[in-house]
Amino acid sequence: MTAFDDLMAFQRETEALAEVAGRLGWDQETMMPRGAAPQRGEEMAAMESVLHARRIDPRIADWLEMIDEAHLDDAGSAQLRHIRRSHIRATKVPSALAARIARVTSQAQGIWAQARADDDFKAFAPTLSEVITLKREEGMALAAGGNVYDAMLDDYEPGATGAELEAMFGALRPELTRLREAVREAEQPPELQGAFDEAAQMKLTRHLAKTFGYDMSMGRVDKAVHPFSSGSGLDVRITTRTNERDPFNCFYSTIHEVGHACYEQGIDKAYLLTPLGRGVSMGVHESQSRIYENQLGRSRAFTGWLYGQMRDAFGDFGIGDADTFYKVVNRVSDGYIRTEADELQYNLHVLLRFDLERALMGGDLQVDDLEAAWNDRFEADFGFAVDKPSHGVLQDVHWSVGLFGYFPTYSLGNVYAGCLYQALCQDVTTLDAQLAQGETGEATRWLNQHVQTHGGLFEPRALIERASGQTPSEAPLLSYLSAKFSDLYGI
Amino acid sequence: MTAFDDLMAFQRETEALAEVAGRLGWDQETMMPRGAAPQRGEEMAAMESVLHARRIDPRIADWLEMIDEAHLDDAGSAQLRHIRRSHIRATKVPSALAARIARVTSQAQGIWAQARADDDFKAFAPTLSEVITLKREEGMALAAGGNVYDAMLDDYEPGATGAELEAMFGALRPELTRLREAVREAEQPPELQGAFDEAAQMKLTRHLAKTFGYDMSMGRVDKAVHPFSSGSGLDVRITTRTNERDPFNCFYSTIHEVGHACYEQGIDKAYLLTPLGRGVSMGVHESQSRIYENQLGRSRAFTGWLYGQMRDAFGDFGIGDADTFYKVVNRVSDGYIRTEADELQYNLHVLLRFDLERALMGGDLQVDDLEAAWNDRFEADFGFAVDKPSHGVLQDVHWSVGLFGYFPTYSLGNVYAGCLYQALCQDVTTLDAQLAQGETGEATRWLNQHVQTHGGLFEPRALIERASGQTPSEAPLLSYLSAKFSDLYGI
Repeated sequence: MTAFDDLMAFQRETEALAEVAGRLGWDQETMMPRGAAPQRGEEMAAMESVLHARRIDPRIADWLEMIDEAHLDDAGSAQLRHIRRSHIRATKVPSALAARIARVTSQAQGIWAQARADDDFKAFAPTLSEVITLKREEGMALAAGGNVYDAMLDDYEPGATGAELEAMFGALRPELTRLREAVREAEQPPELQGAFDEAAQMKLTRHLAKTFGYDMSMGRVDKAVHPFSSGSGLDVRITTRTNERDPFNCFYSTIHEVGHACYEQGIDKAYLLTPLGRGVSMGVHESQSRIYENQLGRSRAFTGWLYGQMRDAFGDFGIGDADTFYKVVNRVSDGYIRTEADELQYNLHVLLRFDLERALMGGDLQVDDLEAAWNDRFEADFGFAVDKPSHGVLQDVHWSVGLFGYFPTYSLGNVYAGCLYQALCQDVTTLDAQLAQGETGEATRWLNQHVQTHGGLFEPRALIERASGQTPSEAPLLSYLSAKFSDLYGI
Repeated sequence: MTAFDDLMAFQRETEALAEVAGRLGWDQETMMPRGAAPQRGEEMAAMESVLHARRIDPRIADWLEMIDEAHLDDAGSAQLRHIRRSHIRATKVPSALAARIARVTSQAQGIWAQARADDDFKAFAPTLSEVITLKREEGMALAAGGNVYDAMLDDYEPGATGAELEAMFGALRPELTRLREAVREAEQPPELQGAFDEAAQMKLTRHLAKTFGYDMSMGRVDKAVHPFSSGSGLDVRITTRTNERDPFNCFYSTIHEVGHACYEQGIDKAYLLTPLGRGVSMGVHESQSRIYENQLGRSRAFTGWLYGQMRDAFGDFGIGDADTFYKVVNRVSDGYIRTEADELQYNLHVLLRFDLERALMGGDLQVDDLEAAWNDRFEADFGFAVDKPSHGVLQDVHWSVGLFGYFPTYSLGNVYAGCLYQALCQDVTTLDAQLAQGETGEATRWLNQHVQTHGGLFEPRALIERASGQTPSEAPLLSYLSAKFSDLYGI
């Protein structure tokens, strides 16, 4: 055994344990009896403690020092890059601080949930201040003199910087608000009406999951309050939800999560249970889920096929033809909530959070002023006022659990999806003809071959550049959205 | 923090991790997609490796040495007893041997399953020999000059000895064969006929679980190939199975597993995530599952109530009255398979395995002669010949995975159940009147108070002696079985 082999064997066990911790999270949201929560907290903490001890294990530094990188192939070098990054990150944060963040954010989540239920931002503000103080301390330890927000971003999107995202999102925002206003003034398509049997929704949703290439022999679909995808390698599970009056929520949540899951399932099995065996960043992950959900799933071609499936499943549901159905699926309407936003407005929700959290972290915005800042920005971008905190600053769990630097990866994923879709359309000229038959095979094969199979081999930005044949920018996303919604709304 | 506090904090984390490993086992049998099996193997191995490292952690010995036991209360002393036993056991077995046993038994289980499917004992014999050689080596390391089989027993039934069990079972066997023969010659009750909707079985089975006091807010019931109970403390889950033609299999599997689960759920919550927070031995565990299933669940009083429940659920199913129903539930019939055996014959199956595995471990029986020895003994005890190995020596998984010393705990559990039932009937004089109403509350409260709540506080035998007010012996079980089946069969 060489030092590289020893390191990889150790890492493989760590990856397996991380998968176990992930499965525990899945269980908690799907199967766990409610009364088990206090015990589960201790189980999760014990797993985290084991994983943390392994990440800071001093043998990792020894092995890294002993390995002669010149003799490694590209995959070997990439493995070391990931292992080194994770080890350095874990050792930079003092254990006492990490433990304090874990404890405070665990409590903060409960306080946030109560404040949201009570529509009372003031009840959450002191806790949020404490979380921010601790996360800034962590960020400073990670940045070691560099940019604190960039250090936080690095956890979710290695290599990305706040400045680069600011430029990208700065170009996106005015175009989106302009388009949004034009759409708001145009004639609106009808809304979906009626009730849709939930068991039939689940049946069709499983069919959709398979249609998009999700391998059910190494996965499963369950219901949960919040849809998510969980796990890597041979065991990647998704959840969805049903609402009798809103079958699109079920179907498009499923297609979105299937995008995440197919990414994980599609990684070269040679990388199983190694750092290369997981999606390389949140942004790239979101590019897959969003391209499945939107560019493919909400296309005119695919919705034409879906219209037939829904008529088979539910009978006549009051939409007379596939063109109208396409408009109904892509209907743009006013709303406060990010997770319920349509394709056009979604990024405006994210950009708002990106700017506010950078201001919070940079000390340019105080928690006491956060609610007003949120409400002002919301009205500026969406044209109407927030009516209560649960529809505004209290709507997302992220900040309460210390996820700063996470939000922008949602929009970065959409930007990446725009780049990939442009290249995909050039390479797969029969795309629409296939989607119209409910065939996603060529599109998902293209995504697998250019993105998914590589796992963590390339850095995120380099991966998208390589796959799309262009420097990633917001331009393809903007031109796609502009064309789609101009056509839909005749503007 | 004292040394005791440090040790208990460390142990608490170990217990939490062991719960996680257990939950992974539950997932594997209920939820895991089939294709995930290879990855799951690595995940389980990683958890085992973490747990093993903690069990042999040298700090345990240091802490144990530093603790002044004179200052501990009974619970504290009992905690130390369990921790010391587990630590000594783990350190006695060389890590290389433990790893080899894990690898060989993991393969052996697959070879056994194939041999059973092919009805070919010879295909399994070499592997079984290897398992036995390794387990003897482990047993010798554990026994350190003492009795090897007793050292193995100690894993499942601390303090029990082969000699003591031999005496107990030696008294049981002739009485059981005698009773069995008499029953065989008597007039037989009818068999259950017809089909019973499986969804309705599951509905009634959940009702039965609650009837016996299973707390569903800290548990759940799923289907699995083999019924089992899993977990401790606040998250104790059971499985059952359904067969359209055999609803009793579903109901009594459930009641049996509920017995196990209520034991775990009923332990004093002060012992949560400590060595006292789990059932104290396999024998005591089985005493709870069997008394729930048989002495309570298959009693004339309770079956009278169940008869009404089944008529409500399934309508008229061809059994005209509750007395006949009682006979049908307790029908004794010829069969090869231990897990399908009735209350009267079950222990004969176990005793056969106990004698054979002691002979195998003692070197008095060679694997090449095992099939013949099994078949001879079976015919002697049951009065008819084994027709094929899958109905005989290949029917149980236990030996393939190295479980030697486990089988006798099944019968010891029945013996303990006999003792407990005698005491229960003396204390709860209204037992039958309550069971006839489907009320198990007083009985389960008695069992909770005298057995379950104590968790690992007392040694198994001492616990039963304390609860039943007598030295544990086979006599109460024998007199219960003799009375019950003499009455049922008019002999």
